[in-house]
Amino acid sequence: MKIALAQLNFIVNHFEYNKSKITQTIELAKQSGAELIVFSELAVCGYSPLDLLEREDFIIKCQKSINEIAVHCVGITAIVGSPSLNSNPKGKMLFNSAFVLRNGQVSSIHNKTLLPTYDVFDEYRYFEPNNEFSIIAVNGKKIAVTICEDLWDDQPVSTSFARSRLYSKSPMEELSVFNPDLIINIAASPFSYNNEERRKKVFADNVHRFGLPVIYVNQVGANAELIFDGGSMVLNRKGQILEQLKSFVEDFKIIDTESLETTLSTPIINSSEDLRISKIYGAAILGIRDYFQKMGFSKATLGLSGGIDSAVTLALAADALGCQNLRVILMPSKYSSQHSIDDAIMLAETLNVKYDIINIQEIFDSFNKGLSELFMGMKEDITEENLQARIRGNLLMALSNKFGHLLLNTSNKSEAAVGYGTLYGDMNGALSVLGDIYKTDVFKLAHYINREREVIPNNTILKPPSAELRPDQKDSDSLPEYEILDSVLFRYIEEQKNPETIISEGFDRATVLKAIRLVNINEYKRFQAPPILRVSSKAFGFGRRMPLVAHW
Amino acid sequence: MKIALAQLNFIVNHFEYNKSKITQTIELAKQSGAELIVFSELAVCGYSPLDLLEREDFIIKCQKSINEIAVHCVGITAIVGSPSLNSNPKGKMLFNSAFVLRNGQVSSIHNKTLLPTYDVFDEYRYFEPNNEFSIIAVNGKKIAVTICEDLWDDQPVSTSFARSRLYSKSPMEELSVFNPDLIINIAASPFSYNNEERRKKVFADNVHRFGLPVIYVNQVGANAELIFDGGSMVLNRKGQILEQLKSFVEDFKIIDTESLETTLSTPIINSSEDLRISKIYGAAILGIRDYFQKMGFSKATLGLSGGIDSAVTLALAADALGCQNLRVILMPSKYSSQHSIDDAIMLAETLNVKYDIINIQEIFDSFNKGLSELFMGMKEDITEENLQARIRGNLLMALSNKFGHLLLNTSNKSEAAVGYGTLYGDMNGALSVLGDIYKTDVFKLAHYINREREVIPNNTILKPPSAELRPDQKDSDSLPEYEILDSVLFRYIEEQKNPETIISEGFDRATVLKAIRLVNINEYKRFQAPPILRVSSKAFGFGRRMPLVAHW
Repeated sequence: MKIALAQLNFIVNHFEYNKSKITQTIELAKQSGAELIVFSELAVCGYSPLDLLEREDFIIKCQKSINEIAVHCVGITAIVGSPSLNSNPKGKMLFNSAFVLRNGQVSSIHNKTLLPTYDVFDEYRYFEPNNEFSIIAVNGKKIAVTICEDLWDDQPVSTSFARSRLYSKSPMEELSVFNPDLIINIAASPFSYNNEERRKKVFADNVHRFGLPVIYVNQVGANAELIFDGGSMVLNRKGQILEQLKSFVEDFKIIDTESLETTLSTPIINSSEDLRISKIYGAAILGIRDYFQKMGFSKATLGLSGGIDSAVTLALAADALGCQNLRVILMPSKYSSQHSIDDAIMLAETLNVKYDIINIQEIFDSFNKGLSELFMGMKEDITEENLQARIRGNLLMALSNKFGHLLLNTSNKSEAAVGYGTLYGDMNGALSVLGDIYKTDVFKLAHYINREREVIPNNTILKPPSAELRPDQKDSDSLPEYEILDSVLFRYIEEQKNPETIISEGFDRATVLKAIRLVNINEYKRFQAPPILRVSSKAFGFGRRMPLVAHW
Repeated sequence: MKIALAQLNFIVNHFEYNKSKITQTIELAKQSGAELIVFSELAVCGYSPLDLLEREDFIIKCQKSINEIAVHCVGITAIVGSPSLNSNPKGKMLFNSAFVLRNGQVSSIHNKTLLPTYDVFDEYRYFEPNNEFSIIAVNGKKIAVTICEDLWDDQPVSTSFARSRLYSKSPMEELSVFNPDLIINIAASPFSYNNEERRKKVFADNVHRFGLPVIYVNQVGANAELIFDGGSMVLNRKGQILEQLKSFVEDFKIIDTESLETTLSTPIINSSEDLRISKIYGAAILGIRDYFQKMGFSKATLGLSGGIDSAVTLALAADALGCQNLRVILMPSKYSSQHSIDDAIMLAETLNVKYDIINIQEIFDSFNKGLSELFMGMKEDITEENLQARIRGNLLMALSNKFGHLLLNTSNKSEAAVGYGTLYGDMNGALSVLGDIYKTDVFKLAHYINREREVIPNNTILKPPSAELRPDQKDSDSLPEYEILDSVLFRYIEEQKNPETIISEGFDRATVLKAIRLVNINEYKRFQAPPILRVSSKAFGFGRRMPLVAHW
């Protein structure tokens, strides 16, 4: 039997668009002789619609889409993700379901059992867990249909204080009593550079536990913070990956169930550091591009300082949006070094990006004059540093308002963590590109961008990081060296280790406690930060919910 | 038997502070002859600690607190809320528990069964639902211990597309087989002006279903967005409220179980519109005060425009923080009317608040000069309006940075809904005071503030609302009249009605569709807004999670 894997990029709440994409792909699969086609989780409405799921008009549109798609399912069976109504008067109103469509109608509905409710996932907010199990038959093959987390009942633990069995049920244990021939998993599984190996392990573990091949169809595309990488997979009975669809783009592939019985003599494994950085690069490009396209924008701006963060952001934006859609501003002050201005100009010219230079000194002077009575007799301090950052933020927003360029934020994760940034200044932006990428990885990204030619000036990469908001300022004046800071931050944020554990791993006590304190007390800044493209297992934003008002 | 109700204001993660408050109150109860004392949900750590619950060091501190509190429980039994570890290796790692402490140790642990996971609640993110039921006995009385949502298995529906039975279990049905004499409910139930009657109805319904009196102990105090109002209650066997503890302040009361058998001849009912506004007033005061106190700040600033929003915010801040802790700036431009300046000065003088005046024209001119090359040949538009708002935002942040005054945001809910505000300008602030209060309610608050004398100048209340960012601008130039706008917004946001339903209730189609479209497309602005004091059943922020990238 031929099975089509449809790895598509949906838009949340765009029913016509999603439906048309789905029905066109069904027609393509029919032409290719497929007897079954598999779409991803919540395909009809896009994942995740969040609180739109609480609206009756939204659910009616989902039902209408399913019925209209079903009409196309003649001579083919389709598995399509959509919410469905819970007919039991007790429990949440909806299920997260896989609809089996054939003979022009809904043949059966299979509901998700395990509802991830952690990190960026809120599924129990909307859905009732499934409690009834059945399999489907297509051309004599018995198939266990599962939805994303349903295969994650026993997952590798990723933080120090976590457990592998978050659920008391195992959907595949329930389904295996029906003796299925294969497992299909429809998913909306977001990318993170430290999750890819976990994902492969989970599928291989399921293959080994139940002795069944797995076909996994993931959605692709970015929705603000979340980047879905696709990378749909087919695993044989040995747990080897027979097929892997592309990452970060739509893909479509037809496989034959006979191939599931084959064995690879040399399984491909590649997970070097270079691959990690290239995946982050690919994720960021998709994240930027989809944010703009799905919001109906094409043009971007940012402030180009000559430093590495704005340089890497610009290079990513040029790849994602095209240099003709970019326009940047250099905004030197009296504290800006000439080499920073030169480096910024060199980068803009290398990337062929239009740039303007506005010296902020006069505007800064006018603020100081306006504030002179209030501030009489007081010394310059952080106030004046922030003021410069905010003047720049205003100029960028003025350009954005006048010409319709969305402002890209250039802060990195190390800065976001310790609050090294000015709210309403350099923290401005419609989208934070680097906000989940530590400074040490920003350097690696710069090297990756320069892998063929010097795009980002070497001087930008080599010089010591500085905000240039006062004379001879260096980041290392107020922060530990980034190599150390990032190591501490990763252990505290991604791995959720206790401070004492981190110290026991060989870090200086004062450095650890200072870094952690800075993370904790700067929640108020991150609360108002732009959405951050998530590439790690624990990004600031929706997936990390810390109390704003607390004792530290 | 004497039972003490301890309605206290805890600080999240402040274990020493919370423990000391709890043990002091235990000693007080002992001195008063109480045999049982009841504290609120998650009392040892404060509600809600959010993702701190995922940290091992945090859970260890909770356990340590419980053990230290238990030592004080000699000659008295205490019911104290705390997370506890789930000993079953399957399922979430924690329970949300009520610890029964007596004889100096933990006597039993009772776990929460119904875990609210909707609106502002994320409890299934952290906790495993309880599945084992038992009651406790204190001095011969059999008590069913429940935790907050446990009594809400059958709740009045508050939106158009919702159901009353969100859970398949009923903890009280399970507990009633043990024939308890009374129900105790420990809670962390946040205030909303349209939730109070629902809460009373739920308790009365439980009384009638199970024929048992209810003692309800709620936490009081604000944690950023959430304001817990206290208002702990004792209901007799008839469902009448025998005792109600104060709203918005700590309270302590001892009741005798004999009184539970009494009946009131004239139950008190008061729920007029005046009471609603006075409750919103009380909630806002507590919200402001606790944000500052718990964050370690005392001083606030804001921009005083002469309009009603900043006037009401200032009056609230004066009550919450004291006029000596306030300092405001008037920032007129050439578009500011003289009456606005006069009204603002009059208010500041009435409230005895220090004020400065900074005319923004010169700063505005310096920006225009800096941008003149970029904007050559282009007309003035929204860019220049936003620029004025952003200059004001910068000046306020400069004052905030220099003197340590936190900036209070003055935007109201109607504006936040339709995006009538400037990001990084008048949307700045550490805390949004009015962001969950519709403009029509802001006027009612102004009248309430003026109930004894003219605090807010009548002219401020009477004149047509205007942002004064261009000549003769009025809010009604771009928005429907607030009476209509707010009615549409309430139906769409709080009641979650479909657009067609709202239109069918007699509103103009174009007005409804425009208002709803504005709400939807301005999610990106609200994403970066300050935390909003929540007073309604559906505030912008944590409790309303809409997709940022979606088709509208």
